[in-house]
Amino acid sequence: MARLVPVSDPADPRLADYTSLRDVNLRKSLEAEHGLFIAEGEKVIRRAVGAGYPPRSLLMAERWAAPLADLLAGVDAPVYVAPDATVEAVAGFPVHRGALASLHRLPLPPVADVIAGARRLLVLEDLVDHANVGAIFRCAAALGVDAVVLAPRCADPLYRRAIKVSMGAVFAVPHARMPRWTDGLAGLRAAGFTLLALTPDQAAVPLDKAPMGDRVALLLGSEGDGLTSRWLAEADEPVCIPMSADALANGVDSLNVVAAAAIACHALTRS
Amino acid sequence: MARLVPVSDPADPRLADYTSLRDVNLRKSLEAEHGLFIAEGEKVIRRAVGAGYPPRSLLMAERWAAPLADLLAGVDAPVYVAPDATVEAVAGFPVHRGALASLHRLPLPPVADVIAGARRLLVLEDLVDHANVGAIFRCAAALGVDAVVLAPRCADPLYRRAIKVSMGAVFAVPHARMPRWTDGLAGLRAAGFTLLALTPDQAAVPLDKAPMGDRVALLLGSEGDGLTSRWLAEADEPVCIPMSADALANGVDSLNVVAAAAIACHALTRS
Ligand SMILES: C[S@@+](CC[C@H](N)C(=O)[O-])C[C@H]1O[C@@H](n2cnc3c(N)ncnc32)[C@H](O)[C@@H]1O
Ligand SMILES: C[S@@+](CC[C@H](N)C(=O)[O-])C[C@H]1O[C@@H](n2cnc3c(N)ncnc32)[C@H](O)[C@@H]1O
Repeated sequence: MARLVPVSDPADPRLADYTSLRDVNLRKSLEAEHGLFIAEGEKVIRRAVGAGYPPRSLLMAERWAAPLADLLAGVDAPVYVAPDATVEAVAGFPVHRGALASLHRLPLPPVADVIAGARRLLVLEDLVDHANVGAIFRCAAALGVDAVVLAPRCADPLYRRAIKVSMGAVFAVPHARMPRWTDGLAGLRAAGFTLLALTPDQAAVPLDKAPMGDRVALLLGSEGDGLTSRWLAEADEPVCIPMSADALANGVDSLNVVAAAAIACHALTRS
Repeated sequence: MARLVPVSDPADPRLADYTSLRDVNLRKSLEAEHGLFIAEGEKVIRRAVGAGYPPRSLLMAERWAAPLADLLAGVDAPVYVAPDATVEAVAGFPVHRGALASLHRLPLPPVADVIAGARRLLVLEDLVDHANVGAIFRCAAALGVDAVVLAPRCADPLYRRAIKVSMGAVFAVPHARMPRWTDGLAGLRAAGFTLLALTPDQAAVPLDKAPMGDRVALLLGSEGDGLTSRWLAEADEPVCIPMSADALANGVDSLNVVAAAAIACHALTRS
């Protein structure tokens, strides 16, 4: 049973988990150091707890405690109840969705476990934008991709904004992080996956001619530079979504990575 | 030929166009009142000027003037040159892409003009998020949708963030805003378009059974509530992208609107 603890001082050290939620660099180091992540809003908090992440604490204005009463009854962690102004002062912005939770991260499973029973994979190289990572997890969940494998430098799916944009899909889609970028693809190939490198290069194999089906992994590259030449070279095939010649003439030379992921996942999961 | 004008005081009234670029509400009223919009970064500024929008002024740190020299030579507007700290103080954040331009909006064409020669349309109802609107324009351009029609309350494609995410596609894809929400669809139908309402409702016609081809308009709804029941009822067919049963069980009950738009545009433009 959670304890309700009134707080009001934004400098209260017990609220340190919730500091400056919009400061990406600060949050990255703070969350890594303490092995925590933040969930925002009733729905997302319920999914995180339901997925087995143990709460460290919660922070909310008093009016949010009642709708969460059933959840709080089963939680063994302090629930800090504070005026809106205190929550805003700590978090650094007005928290419209009301409740925040700080949860313990769990060790990610090894890549081998996550891909063992999978038929269709996404592999994300160095994506930078947390909203893009979240939206891609949402696509993966909605369209039935079995698992996601992340390159070592890909943005964190448990970052607050990624969780939010994913609608909690980051808790539903099994994922793992490859320990090394250099031989990460070799491991997938050894496990029997065909690796398709998605690239805007219109000389690549068009999507509808690509070898889809079982044990296929789709590789997606970063927002700025796309896939590295190493991964492009290591993949079995470069694959492109055909784009209009007019677009290219107008300087629109690629889709955003979420749009590309959506189109490719849709093609893959219907094959 | 643009005049270079050194400035350093963030309160200089000549910099008023660039105030608080991240304050959405303030920007909406300021931009509407003065009929302006802001383009950020060399590439986007070049596209905006190339598309015929007359600059009111530019604002940049001195080092950005040289790479833009050829453009500035053809521009009849003051170029305010300021220290980084001044630009940051006015804009409200560090402007990494260097140059900013304030440009005059041009009157949008009437819907009838924009759809006259079009084969494939997107129609956006009440989308709220500027990044989503920008990403959808980028999809439309990349995949070859001919025009976009906006409901009266759909977020502004010329908002700075929409322009940026679109990679300038908002300047390349003809678009118009319907004067009234109530009879906007009737006008499209009268022009011979089949209206397909995209909805996550899995009882709708699956995308691959939908009547695609010439004179088709795809209707997309807002991030929160989706299409209004009025538009759903008025459309010729509700159409869904099939989603995995697992996803629905996990509470992921829709795709994000960019992902849905991408998949549907891809299907439409290849038909
Ligand atoms: C914004 S793009 C990167 C653009 C980069 N300039 C390049 O050439 O790859 C980000 C990722 O989206 C995917 N992508 C974008 N457009 C695509 C297309 N038309 N076909 C296939 N994949 C695409 C690729 O995986 C790419 O690495
Ligand atoms: C996030 S969804 C809105 C969800 C809302 N709860 C609803 O029921 O419509 C935003 C828009 O994306 C489109 N969309 C999302 N998932 C879709 C799917 N599976 N099939 C077709 N369209 C979809 C629809 O146009 C929808 O209005």
